Amino acid sequence: MPSTASIRSSFKDAKTVVVKVGTSVVSRPDGTVAIGRIASVVEQIAQLRLQGKRVVLVASGAIGVGSTRLSEQAVLSKSIRDHLINPNASASTSARARAAAGQGGLMGLYDTLFSQYSVACGQLLVTEADFQSAPRRERFCDSLRWLLDAGGVPVINENDVTARPELRSLFRDNDSLAVLIALELKADLLLLLSDVAGVYARKPEPGETPELLPCVTRVTKVSFGSKSERGRGGMEAKVEAALEAAESGVGAVVIASGFTQESIARLIGGEALGTVFLDHRSFKDAPSETAPTAQAQAQAARSAARALQLLSHAERVQVLHAMADALEANSAEICAANAKDVAAFATSAKNSGTAMAARLLLTPKKLGGVAKGIRSLAEQPNPLGRTVRLVEISPGLQLEQETVPIGVLLVIFESRPDVLPQVAALSIASGNGVLLKGGKEALLTNGALHKTLCAAIEHSTDGRVPGSALGFVQGRDEIAQLLRLHKDIDLVIPRGSNSMVQHIMSSTRIPTLGHADGICHLYVDAAADVEKAIALTIDSKADYPAACNALETLLLHESLVGRGVAARVLDAAKQAGITVFGGPKASTALGLPPAASLRVEYGELAMAVELVDGVQSAVEHVNAHGSGHTDVIVTEDGAAAEAFLRGVDSADVFHNASSRFADGFRLGLGAEVGISTSRIHARGPVGVEGLLTTRNRLISDSSHLVGDFHTGRKTYTHKDLLAPQARL
Amino acid sequence: MPSTASIRSSFKDAKTVVVKVGTSVVSRPDGTVAIGRIASVVEQIAQLRLQGKRVVLVASGAIGVGSTRLSEQAVLSKSIRDHLINPNASASTSARARAAAGQGGLMGLYDTLFSQYSVACGQLLVTEADFQSAPRRERFCDSLRWLLDAGGVPVINENDVTARPELRSLFRDNDSLAVLIALELKADLLLLLSDVAGVYARKPEPGETPELLPCVTRVTKVSFGSKSERGRGGMEAKVEAALEAAESGVGAVVIASGFTQESIARLIGGEALGTVFLDHRSFKDAPSETAPTAQAQAQAARSAARALQLLSHAERVQVLHAMADALEANSAEICAANAKDVAAFATSAKNSGTAMAARLLLTPKKLGGVAKGIRSLAEQPNPLGRTVRLVEISPGLQLEQETVPIGVLLVIFESRPDVLPQVAALSIASGNGVLLKGGKEALLTNGALHKTLCAAIEHSTDGRVPGSALGFVQGRDEIAQLLRLHKDIDLVIPRGSNSMVQHIMSSTRIPTLGHADGICHLYVDAAADVEKAIALTIDSKADYPAACNALETLLLHESLVGRGVAARVLDAAKQAGITVFGGPKASTALGLPPAASLRVEYGELAMAVELVDGVQSAVEHVNAHGSGHTDVIVTEDGAAAEAFLRGVDSADVFHNASSRFADGFRLGLGAEVGISTSRIHARGPVGVEGLLTTRNRLISDSSHLVGDFHTGRKTYTHKDLLAPQARL
Repeated sequence: MPSTASIRSSFKDAKTVVVKVGTSVVSRPDGTVAIGRIASVVEQIAQLRLQGKRVVLVASGAIGVGSTRLSEQAVLSKSIRDHLINPNASASTSARARAAAGQGGLMGLYDTLFSQYSVACGQLLVTEADFQSAPRRERFCDSLRWLLDAGGVPVINENDVTARPELRSLFRDNDSLAVLIALELKADLLLLLSDVAGVYARKPEPGETPELLPCVTRVTKVSFGSKSERGRGGMEAKVEAALEAAESGVGAVVIASGFTQESIARLIGGEALGTVFLDHRSFKDAPSETAPTAQAQAQAARSAARALQLLSHAERVQVLHAMADALEANSAEICAANAKDVAAFATSAKNSGTAMAARLLLTPKKLGGVAKGIRSLAEQPNPLGRTVRLVEISPGLQLEQETVPIGVLLVIFESRPDVLPQVAALSIASGNGVLLKGGKEALLTNGALHKTLCAAIEHSTDGRVPGSALGFVQGRDEIAQLLRLHKDIDLVIPRGSNSMVQHIMSSTRIPTLGHADGICHLYVDAAADVEKAIALTIDSKADYPAACNALETLLLHESLVGRGVAARVLDAAKQAGITVFGGPKASTALGLPPAASLRVEYGELAMAVELVDGVQSAVEHVNAHGSGHTDVIVTEDGAAAEAFLRGVDSADVFHNASSRFADGFRLGLGAEVGISTSRIHARGPVGVEGLLTTRNRLISDSSHLVGDFHTGRKTYTHKDLLAPQARL
Repeated sequence: MPSTASIRSSFKDAKTVVVKVGTSVVSRPDGTVAIGRIASVVEQIAQLRLQGKRVVLVASGAIGVGSTRLSEQAVLSKSIRDHLINPNASASTSARARAAAGQGGLMGLYDTLFSQYSVACGQLLVTEADFQSAPRRERFCDSLRWLLDAGGVPVINENDVTARPELRSLFRDNDSLAVLIALELKADLLLLLSDVAGVYARKPEPGETPELLPCVTRVTKVSFGSKSERGRGGMEAKVEAALEAAESGVGAVVIASGFTQESIARLIGGEALGTVFLDHRSFKDAPSETAPTAQAQAQAARSAARALQLLSHAERVQVLHAMADALEANSAEICAANAKDVAAFATSAKNSGTAMAARLLLTPKKLGGVAKGIRSLAEQPNPLGRTVRLVEISPGLQLEQETVPIGVLLVIFESRPDVLPQVAALSIASGNGVLLKGGKEALLTNGALHKTLCAAIEHSTDGRVPGSALGFVQGRDEIAQLLRLHKDIDLVIPRGSNSMVQHIMSSTRIPTLGHADGICHLYVDAAADVEKAIALTIDSKADYPAACNALETLLLHESLVGRGVAARVLDAAKQAGITVFGGPKASTALGLPPAASLRVEYGELAMAVELVDGVQSAVEHVNAHGSGHTDVIVTEDGAAAEAFLRGVDSADVFHNASSRFADGFRLGLGAEVGISTSRIHARGPVGVEGLLTTRNRLISDSSHLVGDFHTGRKTYTHKDLLAPQARL
């Protein structure tokens, strides 16, 4: 079954599009006409028409327009007024009267609006009778086609004035009318826009942000919310109409909100708005239900993680070994999938880079290395159940704060497929569920890795831990949805380019572990050893210029200029192939080309240099321009070093050591989960402890009530039962 | 000076409103007309007119409409086509031609749109000449007033066809035109809507979300972004025009985005969109600059916190004592301010509750208690600089991970003013800057407390730590802005009602410490001691029913029904005044009124009861319906207890202890910062350690390069230098 995203991406090629706009979209809450939204609909439809598509608009709202018109006494004809004033007039009669007053105005309005784009609009009022007799239906559809052939936009509404709702069977509402039109025209796309944003998997709890089903077929289980539009149709009727259309030859049907700005243009552009309805029979590969939604995946990961947490440490170690073994056992299959990814990447015209191809390539040897890494992770002490705090609250009442998994992680990574098994193993070792989203160029490889690892988890636990502990996320639609699930996902870990990380961080309310920038400084103090300063500068920048912990701005004490030290450092940098730009002071004093900004992450063999007048200025410069990642002082003056280390407000502050040490492995954390510049939860290089939280276990050896403490029968002792940590 | 919010709240009473809509708002990116937005403007203006306001629309965009029209060859008159095709035609000539083609269409469009609401629109084309001669100006303004008196909406545009831009001095652009009209009409409100969202305090860095200045006078320092609209006016001209208008008699001028949905209606409704311009001479109380913006306050707190962090522990202790002393020394002044708040609260018609009045009241005795609390906080061991990890990375290279302050906190609390000094002291003790936002009913009290504490901080540090370490936030405008500043504020701590906490949590991307729900469970196992079960149930619910750690759902093992235990527990609950509702099973088996939901926080003497068939079902029920706060098992069966404590995925899991122990003081944390149900950063009751993060200090006794480790000249030892914690 194709992904919903790929179906949506074909909408832009639709030749014939039917758009139905519900009453609530074209009316204001007080029942008068919402011309703002009407005009926006016309504007978007006119654009589609001007792009060469055949577009039909099925519009509601004549009654609304009538309400507005009738509010002005002067336009009331006597007979209509009688209808309204007559207390015996039925609701449907007065609605009919309002429709009569409104229809003309609505017609004129559409005409004027479309004419702004020199698009002719032909307005057609239909009744059920037009569809009940074959000749009348043919005549109506002929007119419709003629109008489309002539380049016009048909605007269709049921003739509310002459319609007889009591006899209605074919036209339950304007949705059914739109479906009939779409079927007659064999439309490629039918958009049903109203106050219904789509279909939900279940009725949301109060206060919960509900998640829309991206895609529905007749076999999908759906729940109908209580919300329905002001018009005649209810939610069930709407879904039924959409399914009917999808199953009877309309390419795709979408139910989406008409209140979303530019919803038509954005839907045609492939954006993931609303719910897409498909014919379940056309998708032979489809499972009995459509693919699990993002939310369902996250919730399945939560539940699997809870099962994982109940395993003993020995059992989790067994799972890790099973994962490592499975990677080696399925090496051939995984590498075959990888070969296809690599081939597709190589033939793609824009991919000439060999570095990226090398990163994408997975060999049996690389896989063996990954398996070895997982086995060494299995040797580590149990990160879970570690006692962080142990306190006697009162005699017989003991509090133990212990480490537990965070819950559900979402890890987003680019290209390198070996990240997937590494992250999966770290998550399993720490008892977390994880949703994995890799780069699309490694899709087949990642799929094969994921399948192998899920099977290993299920098999090694006799099914006690379902494979859904590792979720596999494929499309961009899904990722956008996942980033909204702040109740179902506890932590997002993006691993990739700065722009990717920045995008993720700005798109979600879920806590994110990572850093968007690594603007690291090295300050050479007046009391620095010159040889050390040179070696540390070169090592910090040139060891791996693209790393986030590489030096970007070198701060030199101004006294170093006169002493010739600055020139020596810059010469050495030049020798090492580093291009140097100058800040406002340095460019003048040292004759350097000016840096565009002193807040730049070059990410290559280039850096900025600026002069400062002492350690205090260096601290201020770093705090003002840095990214709180890693900053270094080079000095032989202990007091200056201490002032720098205390004053710089960064995750890592180093004295006479290369900024390149800011790395989980180098700092002895074992596996590195990421480097965080956030001040919350984890900061600096983060190991497996960044995937943990704690839980308080309070255990009474009899029974403890707070009431007994209020009355003084019992007292708090708050005795620490853990020895303080001593320096060895 | 009145707050920006109070000025905005007066917009709804404006009698005469001039709305200027810029070219970019009424045109699409390709230059054709954006009728969607035009119609929305008309819709909103028509509503204002129907509410009885006098409204003038100054509209741009004839050129855009002309572009659209001209794209259709058939409507081209020969002469206009010549203009366009002639390669020698100047840009302004062809613009004029396009205007000629467009003006008629635009007129017709406005006419049709306004007629939908039976509002007459009179269209006026003006040129600078109309304003340069007094009689012509008088004639023009007469027409304008006549039209307004007659209930019409004047739609005004400069006559681009006859205008001579090269001679222009008065009409720099449509903004100036709108200002002239607003001055002529002595308008109460002038809205300048374009692609400029307002004015920024400074040019935002790339990737930064800029913060708008809520309010500007001529003495405010502003920075002009590079963004400007497609029309003639630039940003500086726009600000100048707005200030001119504000200083020459227009009530208030707002620059806001015309792309925001319903911007006119929302501005009139008092929403904090865009920037308000005022006459600096009319606000005698105004400081030389307007009040610091939310962002400026947050940044000042950051900088003060850095100074605070540089103090020694002894110096911070001195500051705490100075704060305590100052509260007592200024007790009379603070209580006088409080008396005014209490009086205002008592006379307010809707405030009949004495409980809230009691919470609001501050007496010298209460203040003394607060001062005592601060002094006892000063006695606590230094939370900062505690070594969390100490590792020899390699001989001579040592890593120390130490505790440091998080940075800048935002604490939002309701009514009780004693919270302010408590939170301030906790923040100072932990080296954090804090922005304090209290309830509006305690505004004078909080102001007096804040002033006292800031002075104490500055004085006791000889000004090394500025009082801005404690920021004081007053208005709702400011709080909304603060919640957007995820780069300037590190942690939000809301303390108040569930709905307030929920609102804060859903309005910000800044990490939030707290919990929206406290749906706590107590499960009485089959192997429970009946007396313990009864006592723990009553204590957990009735000790303080409104607390977040109070029992909400009692789970009973189904075997307890037949044994009569269930009835005894329910009897005891009834005796204690607790109303009991039943879940699906319990309501049938025990004849209880059915609970609407099993996910309810009653917050009063009421709870739900449900039956489960064992500890596993209890765990599943809690994980499905709980809020991850505190859950209790009552049992004498150790294995059942362990299964519950391991399986329940909550911050606090208790065995035979009241849920009411889930509290920072009771669990021995000293001061409680809050109770967190998040899994990130801190979980459960959080003490001062929730206000801390860590920093890595890497110190070389000589100089360390990573290059030496690549080559094998040096090796990693990763030797832990802290003894593992032993149980005493």
